[in-house]
Amino acid sequence: MRNILIIGAGRSASSLIKYLLDKSSEEDLHLLIADISLELADRKTNNHPNATAIALDILNEQQRNKTVASSDLVISMLPAHLHIEVAKDCIRFKKHMVTASYISEQMQALDDEAKANELVFMNEVGLDPGIDHMSAMKVIDEIKQQGGVIKSFKSYCGGLVAPESNTNLWEYKFTWAPRNVVLAGQGGVAKYLEKGQFKYIPYVNLFRRAEKINVNGFGDFEAYANRDAMKYKSIYGIDEAETMYRGTIRNIGFSAAWNVFVQLGMTDDSYKMETTATMTYREFLNSFLPFDNVLSVESKLKRFLEADQKAAIFEKIAELDLFSSTKIVGLVQASPAEILEKILTESWFLQPTDKDMIVMCHEFGYQINGKDKQIDSKMVCIGEDQTYTAMAKTVGLPVAMTSLLILNGKINTYGVQLPIHKNIYEPILKELEKHGVVFEEIYS
Amino acid sequence: MRNILIIGAGRSASSLIKYLLDKSSEEDLHLLIADISLELADRKTNNHPNATAIALDILNEQQRNKTVASSDLVISMLPAHLHIEVAKDCIRFKKHMVTASYISEQMQALDDEAKANELVFMNEVGLDPGIDHMSAMKVIDEIKQQGGVIKSFKSYCGGLVAPESNTNLWEYKFTWAPRNVVLAGQGGVAKYLEKGQFKYIPYVNLFRRAEKINVNGFGDFEAYANRDAMKYKSIYGIDEAETMYRGTIRNIGFSAAWNVFVQLGMTDDSYKMETTATMTYREFLNSFLPFDNVLSVESKLKRFLEADQKAAIFEKIAELDLFSSTKIVGLVQASPAEILEKILTESWFLQPTDKDMIVMCHEFGYQINGKDKQIDSKMVCIGEDQTYTAMAKTVGLPVAMTSLLILNGKINTYGVQLPIHKNIYEPILKELEKHGVVFEEIYS
Repeated sequence: MRNILIIGAGRSASSLIKYLLDKSSEEDLHLLIADISLELADRKTNNHPNATAIALDILNEQQRNKTVASSDLVISMLPAHLHIEVAKDCIRFKKHMVTASYISEQMQALDDEAKANELVFMNEVGLDPGIDHMSAMKVIDEIKQQGGVIKSFKSYCGGLVAPESNTNLWEYKFTWAPRNVVLAGQGGVAKYLEKGQFKYIPYVNLFRRAEKINVNGFGDFEAYANRDAMKYKSIYGIDEAETMYRGTIRNIGFSAAWNVFVQLGMTDDSYKMETTATMTYREFLNSFLPFDNVLSVESKLKRFLEADQKAAIFEKIAELDLFSSTKIVGLVQASPAEILEKILTESWFLQPTDKDMIVMCHEFGYQINGKDKQIDSKMVCIGEDQTYTAMAKTVGLPVAMTSLLILNGKINTYGVQLPIHKNIYEPILKELEKHGVVFEEIYS
Repeated sequence: MRNILIIGAGRSASSLIKYLLDKSSEEDLHLLIADISLELADRKTNNHPNATAIALDILNEQQRNKTVASSDLVISMLPAHLHIEVAKDCIRFKKHMVTASYISEQMQALDDEAKANELVFMNEVGLDPGIDHMSAMKVIDEIKQQGGVIKSFKSYCGGLVAPESNTNLWEYKFTWAPRNVVLAGQGGVAKYLEKGQFKYIPYVNLFRRAEKINVNGFGDFEAYANRDAMKYKSIYGIDEAETMYRGTIRNIGFSAAWNVFVQLGMTDDSYKMETTATMTYREFLNSFLPFDNVLSVESKLKRFLEADQKAAIFEKIAELDLFSSTKIVGLVQASPAEILEKILTESWFLQPTDKDMIVMCHEFGYQINGKDKQIDSKMVCIGEDQTYTAMAKTVGLPVAMTSLLILNGKINTYGVQLPIHKNIYEPILKELEKHGVVFEEIYS
């Protein structure tokens, strides 16, 4: 019996747990599912005989130590900043560890110790980061093997709703943490490279600079730039690339309308507004528009909107009830971002029958024998229901698959790792295909 | 002999030192002028027999203790965050202290100790904060004395160049720290109250929301909102006001053009750009515009500009040589804000004959016997030359005057103070008038 400790039993753990439980008899696995909420952990066991739920307070050192010590491998699905204490325990008790989060500096600092103890600390093995690395490296390695030189790499990913669930004007609903959607892009300047020119897009410009992309067979989308695309040059070993871009996918028209929230200051999380407990939605919007003795809030917003797409954007904002004089914010001491999140959540929640959709695509431009060539690699995954969502599948399944590969001794590269090597991405991409996560590569 | 220690002998100390030296024989004063640069301190003594210059490293505790202990009153003209160690020394050695800076939380925390030791710690007694408090409180107290109720308070201040020195398209030159001008507005949301409605302007919108104001006899200007205008309700004791606004004055057209820098991301100080040592001005500008195979940087900027004032803004940006392919940034590892500051400094430096100008005005709306009335109070001060600038006079003179009042026992309110009481503002405003800093009040 191999014991896998899974810490954090939230939404994105559903498919991960199901995958491992389905393999548990054949692979001789026992899952210990730990969460701050015992009820949540218990629900995720699905009454399976090979799973046990426990309540775990990650900040309770003694309990955490004991729990980690009793396992063979630890999967941390905690928020990224909470991994580090678990990781230190894993070093101490000599356990492998898997996460779907970006490698923090603190995590990287454990590399030597993990190697010395012959431990695999695999990170960034969810969707994005995760499947993006694996599917990109597969094509990059193939191009290099043929003697090609990568000149351009563009990569896009987005969590959307399935076309049949696109029932509002924004063509968007919350399929993961609403707060992260409201704050998206505020972490720092977006940085990319295009034909050798370094480009920088500040937050104020991010949604105005969205670009149209076409996903073969699924029609047109738009994408806005993601953080620092340049750093992937060295991670992916494509220093010769003159174009590096990463973007987040939305449906056409979303970004121009979202830009209005950014410009008005409604996504700001840095201060608390006055009288938010009793404020109406209309007053919330009016707080960001100039005072006028005569003009209505509607007229003032129309003045604020730029000519381009004015009517369409106005309708989108009206759909959210932002002109309502009766709906009350009802939050005590809230920031604009917190209020906007509340208002959006009322409009953008998933109906019981709604399905989510993940879209990922990469465009590789390369030269081979003096000729310019291109490969587009794309994946569209639609959720089964509201438990086994596309998000839960694409984040959780590669984490589960990686954990099993490590336990079975198939991954022997020790230390703090990314899934960029063939021995990792090849078996996982193959296994993902069996679960409906399929990349299609188009050559031109 | 009364010893005044002046720490910091920069630009804004010139008029302050001159005022005190001119009074030094009559008032039996000796000035100890301390700066990290002995040369600078020495220059400011003007070879006056009642002044001594010393080199002082504010972080050298022993030296600082000794210097503070040897004085009767300490004027700190250091950057605001450096006052606190001096202030603690002043408590320890029982010395009065004067600054032109906003009261920090750390400074406020010394209130009890200052009171217990019968010390005056006077702050915010420069221009803004300083003269704004004093000139506003004078009118507010007069209105209240007549039985009036303040309904509206709007206050504007700006450091500009004198009309005859307005020789560039921006009608602006640097008359104080360029870095602060480049970063202006980035400290947090601007917050104000208009007819009972709370209004919030995010940085992205700050310069777009500039409003025209008229300064009687000096024509039209524009103003953009300043930080938190609401807090002045309690400071000035006008809780009944339904309108509270504070703004920074610029010449007409400045804000719309500056907004382009904000929108492009050129005022961002949060990250370093690539290859800034060899980058041309044109490349700097192009970094913030989309890549295009065909369009020139000029064409791309024109596309980016909104229709309103397009030509005027384009000319302003061209005047700064931002399209130059030969001028090199030449800074190692610089942020956009640092690069912009360098470029602006080349265009916006004061010529030897240029004079600066301070404009301040307040608008008070009040009710008395059921009637609506208004008082406008305004002050325009033009510098003498590049040593005794309007900035140096308006910041330094009230500091000097306050120091003398304290030494002469005319200010007996102990603790951490603001110049909002009549016993302080009345003598200082009168004395300022003798030095050309005159408020004119217009009743309507």
